[in-house]
Amino acid sequence: MQLMRLGPAGQEKPAVRVDDNTYIDVSDIVPDFDEQFFADGGPSLLTDVVAERRRAGTTKPFAGQRIGAPIARPHQILCIGLNYSDHAAETGQAVPDEPIVFNKAPNTLVGPNDTVLIPRGSTKPDWEVELGIVVGRRCRYLADEQEAAAAIAGYVLVNDVSERAFQMERGGQWVKGKSAETFNPCGPYLVTPDEIEDVSKLDMWLHVNGVRRQTGSTATMLFGVAYLVHYLSQFMVLEPGDLINTGTPPGVGMGFNPPIWLRAGDVMELGIEHLGSQRQAVEAAP
Amino acid sequence: MQLMRLGPAGQEKPAVRVDDNTYIDVSDIVPDFDEQFFADGGPSLLTDVVAERRRAGTTKPFAGQRIGAPIARPHQILCIGLNYSDHAAETGQAVPDEPIVFNKAPNTLVGPNDTVLIPRGSTKPDWEVELGIVVGRRCRYLADEQEAAAAIAGYVLVNDVSERAFQMERGGQWVKGKSAETFNPCGPYLVTPDEIEDVSKLDMWLHVNGVRRQTGSTATMLFGVAYLVHYLSQFMVLEPGDLINTGTPPGVGMGFNPPIWLRAGDVMELGIEHLGSQRQAVEAAP
Repeated sequence: MQLMRLGPAGQEKPAVRVDDNTYIDVSDIVPDFDEQFFADGGPSLLTDVVAERRRAGTTKPFAGQRIGAPIARPHQILCIGLNYSDHAAETGQAVPDEPIVFNKAPNTLVGPNDTVLIPRGSTKPDWEVELGIVVGRRCRYLADEQEAAAAIAGYVLVNDVSERAFQMERGGQWVKGKSAETFNPCGPYLVTPDEIEDVSKLDMWLHVNGVRRQTGSTATMLFGVAYLVHYLSQFMVLEPGDLINTGTPPGVGMGFNPPIWLRAGDVMELGIEHLGSQRQAVEAAP
Repeated sequence: MQLMRLGPAGQEKPAVRVDDNTYIDVSDIVPDFDEQFFADGGPSLLTDVVAERRRAGTTKPFAGQRIGAPIARPHQILCIGLNYSDHAAETGQAVPDEPIVFNKAPNTLVGPNDTVLIPRGSTKPDWEVELGIVVGRRCRYLADEQEAAAAIAGYVLVNDVSERAFQMERGGQWVKGKSAETFNPCGPYLVTPDEIEDVSKLDMWLHVNGVRRQTGSTATMLFGVAYLVHYLSQFMVLEPGDLINTGTPPGVGMGFNPPIWLRAGDVMELGIEHLGSQRQAVEAAP
Protein backbone atom coordinates (compact mmCIF):
# COMPACT_ATOMS: atom_id res chain seq x y z
CA MET A 1 0.00 0.00 0.00
CA GLN A 2 1.14 3.53 -0.74
CA LEU A 3 -0.08 6.25 1.61
CA MET A 4 -0.29 9.91 0.59
CA ARG A 5 -1.61 13.14 2.06
CA LEU A 6 -3.15 15.59 -0.39
CA GLY A 7 -4.22 19.21 -0.13
CA PRO A 8 -2.99 22.59 1.07
CA ALA A 9 -0.32 22.70 3.79
CA GLY A 10 -1.91 22.06 7.15
CA GLN A 11 -5.13 20.75 5.59
CA GLU A 12 -3.88 17.57 3.94
CA LYS A 13 -6.29 14.64 3.67
CA PRO A 14 -5.24 10.99 3.81
CA ALA A 15 -5.30 9.00 0.57
CA VAL A 16 -4.06 5.73 -0.88
CA ARG A 17 -2.19 5.91 -4.16
CA VAL A 18 -3.51 3.75 -7.01
CA ASP A 19 -1.20 4.81 -9.84
CA ASP A 20 0.51 7.90 -11.27
CA ASN A 21 -2.83 9.56 -11.94
CA THR A 22 -5.33 8.38 -9.37
CA TYR A 23 -5.89 7.74 -5.66
CA ILE A 24 -8.51 6.49 -3.26
CA ASP A 25 -9.80 9.00 -0.73
CA VAL A 26 -9.77 7.50 2.79
CA SER A 27 -10.40 10.72 4.70
CA ASP A 28 -13.84 9.39 5.70
CA ILE A 29 -12.17 6.36 7.35
CA VAL A 30 -9.24 7.91 9.23
CA PRO A 31 -8.67 11.59 10.08
CA ASP A 32 -4.94 11.57 9.32
CA PHE A 33 -1.80 9.42 9.08
CA ASP A 34 -0.67 10.46 12.54
CA GLU A 35 0.51 8.84 15.75
CA GLN A 36 -3.00 7.61 16.56
CA PHE A 37 -3.41 6.05 13.11
CA PHE A 38 -0.18 4.07 13.37
CA ALA A 39 -0.90 3.12 17.00
CA ASP A 40 -4.31 1.79 15.95
CA GLY A 41 -2.81 -0.50 13.32
CA GLY A 42 -1.76 1.81 10.49
CA PRO A 43 -2.12 0.73 6.86
CA SER A 44 -3.80 -2.55 7.83
CA LEU A 45 -6.83 -0.51 8.94
CA LEU A 46 -7.37 0.42 5.29
CA THR A 47 -6.92 -2.93 3.56
CA ASP A 48 -10.61 -3.79 3.25
CA VAL A 49 -11.88 -0.37 2.30
CA VAL A 50 -9.15 0.11 -0.29
CA ALA A 51 -9.89 -3.29 -1.87
CA GLU A 52 -13.60 -2.47 -1.93
CA ARG A 53 -13.09 0.96 -3.48
CA ARG A 54 -10.65 -0.42 -6.04
CA ARG A 55 -13.31 -2.93 -7.08
CA ALA A 56 -15.96 -0.25 -7.19
CA GLY A 57 -13.66 2.01 -9.18
CA THR A 58 -14.17 4.92 -6.81
CA THR A 59 -10.81 6.49 -7.52
CA LYS A 60 -10.07 10.17 -7.98
CA PRO A 61 -7.58 11.99 -10.22
CA PHE A 62 -4.75 13.93 -8.55
CA ALA A 63 -5.69 16.86 -10.79
CA GLY A 64 -2.79 19.05 -9.71
CA GLN A 65 -3.46 18.90 -5.97
CA ARG A 66 -0.52 19.66 -3.71
CA ILE A 67 1.16 16.56 -2.28
CA GLY A 68 1.96 16.85 1.42
CA ALA A 69 4.33 14.72 3.47
CA PRO A 70 2.75 11.25 3.65
CA ILE A 71 2.71 11.35 7.46
CA ALA A 72 1.51 14.03 9.85
CA ARG A 73 4.09 15.88 11.93
CA PRO A 74 5.64 13.09 14.01
CA HIS A 75 6.51 12.97 17.71
CA GLN A 76 10.16 13.08 16.68
CA ILE A 77 12.44 13.01 13.65
CA LEU A 78 15.58 11.04 14.40
CA CYS A 79 18.56 11.02 12.05
CA ILE A 80 21.50 8.69 11.65
CA GLY A 81 24.82 10.36 10.87
CA LEU A 82 27.55 9.04 8.58
CA ASN A 83 25.66 5.85 7.86
CA TYR A 84 27.22 5.29 4.42
CA SER A 85 30.91 4.45 4.43
CA ASP A 86 31.65 6.44 1.26
CA HIS A 87 29.77 9.50 2.62
CA ALA A 88 31.79 9.38 5.86
CA ALA A 89 34.93 9.38 3.75
CA GLU A 90 33.89 12.40 1.67
CA THR A 91 33.20 14.46 4.83
CA GLY A 92 36.63 13.55 6.22
CA GLN A 93 35.12 11.76 9.23
CA ALA A 94 35.77 8.26 10.52
CA VAL A 95 33.25 5.48 9.93
CA PRO A 96 31.35 5.20 13.24
CA ASP A 97 31.51 2.05 15.39
CA GLU A 98 27.82 2.35 16.16
CA PRO A 99 25.03 4.62 14.87
CA ILE A 100 25.44 8.36 15.44
CA VAL A 101 22.02 9.68 16.44
CA PHE A 102 20.73 13.23 16.30
CA ASN A 103 17.38 14.98 15.97
CA LYS A 104 15.79 17.56 13.78
CA ALA A 105 12.77 19.61 14.82
CA PRO A 106 9.54 17.81 13.81
CA ASN A 107 8.11 21.00 12.29
CA THR A 108 10.73 20.81 9.52
CA LEU A 109 8.48 18.26 7.77
CA VAL A 110 7.09 19.51 4.45
CA GLY A 111 5.78 18.04 1.23
CA PRO A 112 8.08 16.53 -1.41
CA ASN A 113 7.74 19.43 -3.84
CA ASP A 114 7.46 22.35 -1.43
CA THR A 115 9.91 25.22 -1.56
CA VAL A 116 13.05 24.82 0.57
CA LEU A 117 14.03 28.02 2.37
CA ILE A 118 17.67 28.89 3.01
CA PRO A 119 17.70 30.23 6.56
CA ARG A 120 18.79 33.76 7.33
CA GLY A 121 22.51 33.92 8.02
CA SER A 122 23.15 30.65 6.19
CA THR A 123 26.42 30.25 4.30
CA LYS A 124 26.58 26.47 3.74
CA PRO A 125 23.17 24.99 2.89
CA ASP A 126 23.41 21.42 1.62
CA TRP A 127 21.30 18.47 0.43
CA GLU A 128 21.01 14.81 1.52
CA VAL A 129 18.84 12.19 -0.21
CA GLU A 130 17.82 9.63 2.42
CA LEU A 131 15.69 6.58 3.05
CA GLY A 132 13.23 7.34 5.85
CA ILE A 133 11.71 4.72 8.14
CA VAL A 134 8.24 5.34 9.60
CA VAL A 135 7.75 3.57 12.92
CA GLY A 136 4.59 1.47 13.11
CA ARG A 137 4.14 0.95 16.83
CA ARG A 138 5.52 1.92 20.24
CA CYS A 139 9.05 0.46 20.49
CA ARG A 140 10.72 -0.02 23.87
CA TYR A 141 13.73 -2.31 24.30
CA LEU A 142 12.90 -4.40 21.24
CA ALA A 143 14.31 -7.90 21.64
CA ASP A 144 16.00 -8.28 18.27
CA GLU A 145 16.11 -7.18 14.64
CA GLN A 146 13.20 -9.43 13.73
CA GLU A 147 10.95 -7.62 16.21
CA ALA A 148 12.31 -4.31 14.90
CA ALA A 149 11.54 -5.22 11.28
CA ALA A 150 7.96 -6.01 12.28
CA ALA A 151 7.67 -2.55 13.88
CA ILE A 152 8.33 -0.70 10.60
CA ALA A 153 5.16 0.78 9.05
CA GLY A 154 6.86 1.79 5.83
CA TYR A 155 9.52 3.70 3.95
CA VAL A 156 9.64 7.22 2.58
CA LEU A 157 11.96 9.39 0.51
CA VAL A 158 13.46 12.28 2.50
CA ASN A 159 15.71 15.23 1.71
CA ASP A 160 17.57 15.84 5.00
CA VAL A 161 18.44 19.46 4.18
CA SER A 162 21.35 20.71 6.29
CA GLU A 163 23.18 23.93 7.06
CA ARG A 164 26.80 22.85 7.52
CA ALA A 165 28.06 26.00 9.25
CA PHE A 166 25.21 25.81 11.79
CA GLN A 167 25.75 22.04 12.12
CA MET A 168 29.52 21.89 12.42
CA GLU A 169 30.80 25.29 13.49
CA ARG A 170 28.30 26.43 16.11
CA GLY A 171 28.87 24.32 19.21
CA GLY A 172 29.21 20.73 18.09
CA GLN A 173 25.64 19.44 18.43
CA TRP A 174 24.17 18.95 14.97
CA VAL A 175 20.50 19.76 15.61
CA LYS A 176 21.19 23.49 15.11
CA GLY A 177 22.03 22.88 11.45
CA LYS A 178 19.18 20.47 10.77
CA SER A 179 16.09 22.19 12.14
CA ALA A 180 15.33 25.22 9.96
CA GLU A 181 11.81 25.47 8.55
CA THR A 182 11.26 23.38 5.36
CA PHE A 183 14.42 21.32 6.03
CA ASN A 184 12.72 17.92 5.78
CA PRO A 185 10.86 17.38 2.49
CA CYS A 186 9.21 13.96 2.73
CA GLY A 187 7.28 11.81 0.27
CA PRO A 188 5.54 11.70 -2.17
CA TYR A 189 4.28 8.50 -0.56
CA LEU A 190 4.87 5.98 2.20
CA VAL A 191 5.39 2.46 0.84
CA THR A 192 4.58 -0.45 3.13
CA PRO A 193 7.38 -3.04 3.57
CA ASP A 194 5.47 -5.78 1.70
CA GLU A 195 5.86 -3.77 -1.52
CA ILE A 196 9.66 -3.45 -1.25
CA GLU A 197 11.41 -6.64 -2.23
CA ASP A 198 14.76 -5.72 -0.66
CA VAL A 199 15.13 -2.43 1.19
CA SER A 200 18.90 -2.90 1.25
CA LYS A 201 19.16 -2.69 -2.54
CA LEU A 202 17.50 0.58 -3.53
CA ASP A 203 19.15 3.03 -5.93
CA MET A 204 19.27 6.66 -4.78
CA TRP A 205 20.00 9.86 -6.67
CA LEU A 206 19.94 13.64 -6.35
CA HIS A 207 20.31 16.37 -8.96
CA VAL A 208 20.92 20.09 -8.43
CA ASN A 209 19.93 22.21 -11.43
CA GLY A 210 19.89 19.09 -13.55
CA VAL A 211 23.42 18.01 -12.60
CA ARG A 212 23.72 14.63 -10.92
CA ARG A 213 25.31 15.17 -7.49
CA GLN A 214 24.43 12.10 -5.43
CA THR A 215 24.48 8.53 -6.71
CA GLY A 216 24.16 5.72 -4.24
CA SER A 217 22.37 2.65 -3.04
CA THR A 218 21.03 1.55 0.31
CA ALA A 219 23.35 -1.43 -0.27
CA THR A 220 26.23 0.64 1.18
CA MET A 221 24.46 1.56 4.42
CA LEU A 222 26.60 0.67 7.42
CA PHE A 223 23.65 -0.08 9.72
CA GLY A 224 20.49 -1.48 8.15
CA VAL A 225 16.91 -0.49 8.89
CA ALA A 226 16.08 -3.28 11.37
CA TYR A 227 19.41 -2.79 13.13
CA LEU A 228 18.66 0.92 13.54
CA VAL A 229 15.12 0.49 14.91
CA HIS A 230 16.32 -2.13 17.38
CA TYR A 231 19.30 0.00 18.37
CA LEU A 232 17.28 3.19 18.92
CA SER A 233 14.73 1.35 21.05
CA GLN A 234 17.48 0.60 23.59
CA PHE A 235 18.05 4.32 24.23
CA MET A 236 14.56 5.78 23.98
CA VAL A 237 10.96 4.81 23.36
CA LEU A 238 9.95 5.23 19.71
CA GLU A 239 6.37 6.32 19.16
CA PRO A 240 4.08 5.22 16.32
CA GLY A 241 4.63 7.54 13.36
CA ASP A 242 8.15 8.59 14.38
CA LEU A 243 10.40 9.24 11.38
CA ILE A 244 13.98 7.99 11.15
CA ASN A 245 16.22 9.48 8.44
CA THR A 246 18.81 6.77 7.88
CA GLY A 247 21.73 8.73 6.43
CA THR A 248 22.93 9.81 3.02
CA PRO A 249 25.18 8.34 0.32
CA PRO A 250 28.12 10.29 -1.21
CA GLY A 251 27.76 13.47 -3.21
CA VAL A 252 26.64 16.09 -0.71
CA GLY A 253 27.79 19.65 -1.36
CA MET A 254 30.21 19.51 1.58
CA GLY A 255 32.02 16.63 -0.12
CA PHE A 256 33.10 18.53 -3.23
CA ASN A 257 36.41 20.37 -3.48
CA PRO A 258 35.72 23.23 -3.32
CA PRO A 259 32.35 22.58 -1.64
CA ILE A 260 29.13 23.39 -3.49
CA TRP A 261 26.40 25.10 -1.48
CA LEU A 262 22.76 25.63 -2.38
CA ARG A 263 21.73 29.06 -3.60
CA ALA A 264 18.41 30.81 -4.03
CA GLY A 265 17.09 29.87 -7.47
CA ASP A 266 18.48 26.32 -7.39
CA VAL A 267 16.27 23.31 -8.02
CA MET A 268 16.82 19.98 -6.24
CA GLU A 269 15.44 16.76 -7.73
CA LEU A 270 15.90 13.47 -5.94
CA GLY A 271 14.57 9.97 -5.77
CA ILE A 272 14.86 6.46 -4.40
CA GLU A 273 13.88 3.35 -6.36
CA HIS A 274 10.26 2.38 -5.56
CA LEU A 275 9.78 5.45 -3.33
CA GLY A 276 9.11 8.10 -5.96
CA SER A 277 10.80 11.43 -6.52
CA GLN A 278 10.83 15.01 -5.22
CA ARG A 279 11.48 18.42 -6.71
CA GLN A 280 12.18 21.50 -4.59
CA ALA A 281 12.80 25.08 -5.61
CA VAL A 282 15.27 26.82 -3.29
CA GLU A 283 14.57 30.33 -2.03
CA ALA A 284 15.96 32.63 0.63
CA ALA A 285 13.87 32.66 3.83
CA PRO A 286 11.76 35.84 3.85
CA MET B 1 -1.06 32.23 37.46
CA GLN B 2 0.15 28.72 38.22
CA LEU B 3 -0.90 25.96 35.85
CA MET B 4 -1.02 22.30 36.86
CA ARG B 5 -2.20 19.04 35.37
CA LEU B 6 -3.73 16.54 37.77
CA GLY B 7 -4.67 12.90 37.47
CA PRO B 8 -3.32 9.54 36.31
CA ALA B 9 -0.55 9.54 33.68
CA GLY B 10 -2.08 10.10 30.26
CA GLN B 11 -5.37 11.32 31.74
CA GLU B 12 -4.27 14.56 33.41
CA LYS B 13 -6.78 17.41 33.62
CA PRO B 14 -5.84 21.09 33.50
CA ALA B 15 -6.06 23.06 36.73
CA VAL B 16 -4.97 26.36 38.21
CA ARG B 17 -3.20 26.24 41.56
CA VAL B 18 -4.66 28.35 44.36
CA ASP B 19 -2.41 27.37 47.26
CA ASP B 20 -0.65 24.33 48.74
CA ASN B 21 -3.96 22.56 49.31
CA THR B 22 -6.41 23.67 46.65
CA TYR B 23 -6.88 24.30 42.95
CA ILE B 24 -9.46 25.47 40.46
CA ASP B 25 -10.60 22.93 37.90
CA VAL B 26 -10.51 24.43 34.37
CA SER B 27 -10.99 21.19 32.45
CA ASP B 28 -14.43 22.42 31.34
CA ILE B 29 -12.81 25.49 29.76
CA VAL B 30 -9.77 24.02 27.96
CA PRO B 31 -9.06 20.38 27.13
CA ASP B 32 -5.35 20.50 28.00
CA PHE B 33 -2.31 22.75 28.35
CA ASP B 34 -1.03 21.75 24.93
CA GLU B 35 0.20 23.41 21.75
CA GLN B 36 -3.32 24.54 20.82
CA PHE B 37 -3.89 26.08 24.27
CA PHE B 38 -0.71 28.15 24.10
CA ALA B 39 -1.36 29.06 20.45
CA ASP B 40 -4.83 30.32 21.39
CA GLY B 41 -3.50 32.64 24.06
CA GLY B 42 -2.46 30.36 26.93
CA PRO B 43 -2.94 31.43 30.55
CA SER B 44 -4.69 34.66 29.53
CA LEU B 45 -7.63 32.52 28.33
CA LEU B 46 -8.24 31.57 31.96
CA THR B 47 -7.95 34.94 33.69
CA ASP B 48 -11.66 35.68 33.89
CA VAL B 49 -12.87 32.22 34.81
CA VAL B 50 -10.21 31.83 37.49
CA ALA B 51 -11.10 35.20 39.04
CA GLU B 52 -14.77 34.28 38.98
CA ARG B 53 -14.20 30.86 40.53
CA ARG B 54 -11.90 32.32 43.18
CA ARG B 55 -14.66 34.74 44.15
CA ALA B 56 -17.23 31.98 44.17
CA GLY B 57 -14.92 29.78 46.24
CA THR B 58 -15.27 26.85 43.84
CA THR B 59 -11.88 25.40 44.65
CA LYS B 60 -11.04 21.73 45.13
CA PRO B 61 -8.58 20.00 47.45
CA PHE B 62 -5.63 18.15 45.86
CA ALA B 63 -6.54 15.19 48.08
CA GLY B 64 -3.56 13.10 47.10
CA GLN B 65 -4.11 13.22 43.32
CA ARG B 66 -1.07 12.56 41.17
CA ILE B 67 0.55 15.70 39.79
CA GLY B 68 1.47 15.45 36.10
CA ALA B 69 3.83 17.63 34.12
CA PRO B 70 2.14 21.07 33.90
CA ILE B 71 2.22 20.95 30.09
CA ALA B 72 1.18 18.24 27.66
CA ARG B 73 3.89 16.47 25.65
CA PRO B 74 5.41 19.32 23.62
CA HIS B 75 6.38 19.46 19.96
CA GLN B 76 10.00 19.45 21.10
CA ILE B 77 12.18 19.60 24.19
CA LEU B 78 15.29 21.67 23.53
CA CYS B 79 18.18 21.78 25.97
CA ILE B 80 21.03 24.21 26.45
CA GLY B 81 24.37 22.63 27.32
CA LEU B 82 27.00 24.03 29.70
CA ASN B 83 25.00 27.19 30.38
CA TYR B 84 26.44 27.78 33.86
CA SER B 85 30.11 28.75 33.93
CA ASP B 86 30.82 26.76 37.12
CA HIS B 87 29.06 23.66 35.71
CA ALA B 88 31.16 23.83 32.54
CA ALA B 89 34.26 23.93 34.73
CA GLU B 90 33.25 20.87 36.77
CA THR B 91 32.71 18.80 33.61
CA GLY B 92 36.14 19.83 32.31
CA GLN B 93 34.67 21.55 29.28
CA ALA B 94 35.26 25.08 28.01
CA VAL B 95 32.63 27.77 28.52
CA PRO B 96 30.83 28.01 25.16
CA ASP B 97 30.96 31.16 23.01
CA GLU B 98 27.31 30.74 22.14
CA PRO B 99 24.53 28.39 23.34
CA ILE B 100 25.07 24.66 22.78
CA VAL B 101 21.73 23.24 21.69
CA PHE B 102 20.55 19.64 21.79
CA ASN B 103 17.24 17.78 22.03
CA LYS B 104 15.67 15.16 24.16
CA ALA B 105 12.74 13.01 23.04
CA PRO B 106 9.44 14.73 23.93
CA ASN B 107 8.06 11.49 25.43
CA THR B 108 10.59 11.76 28.28
CA LEU B 109 8.21 14.24 29.94
CA VAL B 110 6.76 12.92 33.22
CA GLY B 111 5.31 14.37 36.41
CA PRO B 112 7.48 15.96 39.11
CA ASN B 113 7.16 13.04 41.54
CA ASP B 114 7.04 10.12 39.11
CA THR B 115 9.59 7.32 39.33
CA VAL B 116 12.77 7.81 37.29
CA LEU B 117 13.90 4.64 35.52
CA ILE B 118 17.59 3.89 34.99
CA PRO B 119 17.76 2.56 31.43
CA ARG B 120 18.98 -0.95 30.70
CA GLY B 121 22.73 -0.98 30.13
CA SER B 122 23.20 2.29 31.98
CA THR B 123 26.41 2.82 33.98
CA LYS B 124 26.43 6.59 34.54
CA PRO B 125 22.95 7.97 35.27
CA ASP B 126 23.04 11.54 36.56
CA TRP B 127 20.81 14.42 37.68
CA GLU B 128 20.45 18.08 36.58
CA VAL B 129 18.15 20.62 38.23
CA GLU B 130 17.11 23.16 35.58
CA LEU B 131 14.92 26.13 34.88
CA GLY B 132 12.56 25.30 32.02
CA ILE B 133 11.03 27.86 29.67
CA VAL B 134 7.63 27.14 28.11
CA VAL B 135 7.19 28.90 24.78
CA GLY B 136 3.96 30.89 24.48
CA ARG B 137 3.62 31.40 20.76
CA ARG B 138 5.13 30.48 17.39
CA CYS B 139 8.61 32.05 17.25
CA ARG B 140 10.37 32.59 13.93
CA TYR B 141 13.31 34.96 13.59
CA LEU B 142 12.34 37.02 16.62
CA ALA B 143 13.66 40.57 16.25
CA ASP B 144 15.21 41.01 19.68
CA GLU B 145 15.25 39.90 23.31
CA GLN B 146 12.24 42.05 24.12
CA GLU B 147 10.14 40.18 21.58
CA ALA B 148 11.55 36.91 22.94
CA ALA B 149 10.65 37.80 26.53
CA ALA B 150 7.07 38.47 25.42
CA ALA B 151 6.94 35.01 23.82
CA ILE B 152 7.55 33.17 27.11
CA ALA B 153 4.39 31.59 28.56
CA GLY B 154 6.03 30.64 31.84
CA TYR B 155 8.67 28.82 33.80
CA VAL B 156 8.86 25.30 35.18
CA LEU B 157 11.19 23.22 37.31
CA VAL B 158 12.85 20.36 35.37
CA ASN B 159 15.16 17.48 36.21
CA ASP B 160 17.14 16.95 33.00
CA VAL B 161 18.09 13.35 33.84
CA SER B 162 21.10 12.19 31.81
CA GLU B 163 23.06 9.03 31.10
CA ARG B 164 26.64 10.22 30.76
CA ALA B 165 28.05 7.11 29.06
CA PHE B 166 25.28 7.21 26.44
CA GLN B 167 25.71 11.00 26.12
CA MET B 168 29.49 11.27 25.95
CA GLU B 169 30.90 7.90 24.89
CA ARG B 170 28.51 6.69 22.21
CA GLY B 171 29.12 8.82 19.13
CA GLY B 172 29.30 12.42 20.26
CA GLN B 173 25.71 13.58 19.81
CA TRP B 174 24.12 14.04 23.24
CA VAL B 175 20.50 13.11 22.48
CA LYS B 176 21.29 9.42 22.99
CA GLY B 177 22.00 10.05 26.68
CA LYS B 178 19.06 12.37 27.27
CA SER B 179 16.06 10.54 25.82
CA ALA B 180 15.33 7.49 27.97
CA GLU B 181 11.77 7.13 29.28
CA THR B 182 11.07 9.20 32.45
CA PHE B 183 14.18 11.36 31.88
CA ASN B 184 12.37 14.71 32.06
CA PRO B 185 10.40 15.18 35.31
CA CYS B 186 8.66 18.56 35.01
CA GLY B 187 6.58 20.65 37.39
CA PRO B 188 4.77 20.70 39.80
CA TYR B 189 3.45 23.86 38.14
CA LEU B 190 4.06 26.40 35.41
CA VAL B 191 4.42 29.92 36.78
CA THR B 192 3.60 32.81 34.47
CA PRO B 193 6.32 35.49 34.11
CA ASP B 194 4.27 38.18 35.92
CA GLU B 195 4.62 36.18 39.15
CA ILE B 196 8.44 35.97 39.00
CA GLU B 197 10.06 39.23 40.03
CA ASP B 198 13.47 38.40 38.56
CA VAL B 199 14.01 35.13 36.71
CA SER B 200 17.75 35.71 36.76
CA LYS B 201 17.92 35.50 40.57
CA LEU B 202 16.33 32.17 41.51
CA ASP B 203 17.97 29.77 43.95
CA MET B 204 18.25 26.15 42.81
CA TRP B 205 19.02 22.99 44.74
CA LEU B 206 19.09 19.21 44.40
CA HIS B 207 19.48 16.48 47.03
CA VAL B 208 20.20 12.79 46.50
CA ASN B 209 19.20 10.64 49.48
CA GLY B 210 19.00 13.76 51.62
CA VAL B 211 22.52 14.94 50.77
CA ARG B 212 22.76 18.34 49.09
CA ARG B 213 24.48 17.85 45.71
CA GLN B 214 23.55 20.89 43.63
CA THR B 215 23.47 24.45 44.92
CA GLY B 216 23.12 27.25 42.41
CA SER B 217 21.27 30.26 41.17
CA THR B 218 20.01 31.33 37.79
CA ALA B 219 22.23 34.37 38.42
CA THR B 220 25.20 32.39 37.09
CA MET B 221 23.56 31.43 33.78
CA LEU B 222 25.77 32.39 30.83
CA PHE B 223 22.86 33.03 28.44
CA GLY B 224 19.62 34.33 29.93
CA VAL B 225 16.09 33.25 29.07
CA ALA B 226 15.25 36.01 26.58
CA TYR B 227 18.64 35.61 24.92
CA LEU B 228 18.01 31.88 24.48
CA VAL B 229 14.51 32.20 23.01
CA HIS B 230 15.70 34.87 20.58
CA TYR B 231 18.77 32.81 19.68
CA LEU B 232 16.87 29.57 19.06
CA SER B 233 14.33 31.33 16.85
CA GLN B 234 17.15 32.16 14.40
CA PHE B 235 17.83 28.46 13.77
CA MET B 236 14.37 26.90 13.93
CA VAL B 237 10.73 27.75 14.43
CA LEU B 238 9.64 27.30 18.05
CA GLU B 239 6.08 26.11 18.50
CA PRO B 240 3.67 27.14 21.28
CA GLY B 241 4.20 24.83 24.25
CA ASP B 242 7.78 23.89 23.33
CA LEU B 243 9.96 23.31 26.41
CA ILE B 244 13.50 24.67 26.73
CA ASN B 245 15.69 23.26 29.52
CA THR B 246 18.18 26.04 30.14
CA GLY B 247 21.11 24.18 31.68
CA THR B 248 22.24 23.13 35.13
CA PRO B 249 24.37 24.66 37.89
CA PRO B 250 27.32 22.82 39.51
CA GLY B 251 26.99 19.62 41.50
CA VAL B 252 26.03 16.96 38.96
CA GLY B 253 27.28 13.43 39.66
CA MET B 254 29.77 13.65 36.79
CA GLY B 255 31.45 16.59 38.52
CA PHE B 256 32.49 14.74 41.68
CA ASN B 257 35.85 12.98 42.02
CA PRO B 258 35.24 10.11 41.86
CA PRO B 259 31.91 10.67 40.07
CA ILE B 260 28.68 9.74 41.84
CA TRP B 261 26.05 7.95 39.74
CA LEU B 262 22.40 7.32 40.52
CA ARG B 263 21.44 3.84 41.73
CA ALA B 264 18.16 2.01 42.07
CA GLY B 265 16.73 2.89 45.45
CA ASP B 266 18.01 6.48 45.42
CA VAL B 267 15.69 9.42 45.96
CA MET B 268 16.19 12.78 44.21
CA GLU B 269 14.64 15.94 45.65
CA LEU B 270 15.06 19.25 43.88
CA GLY B 271 13.61 22.71 43.65
CA ILE B 272 13.86 26.23 42.30
CA GLU B 273 12.71 29.29 44.23
CA HIS B 274 9.08 30.17 43.33
CA LEU B 275 8.78 27.07 41.07
CA GLY B 276 8.11 24.40 43.71
CA SER B 277 9.89 21.14 44.30
CA GLN B 278 10.06 17.56 43.00
CA ARG B 279 10.76 14.16 44.54
CA GLN B 280 11.64 11.11 42.43
CA ALA B 281 12.35 7.56 43.48
CA VAL B 282 14.94 5.89 41.21
CA GLU B 283 14.38 2.35 39.93
CA ALA B 284 15.91 0.12 37.31
CA ALA B 285 13.92 0.01 34.06
CA PRO B 286 11.91 -3.23 33.97
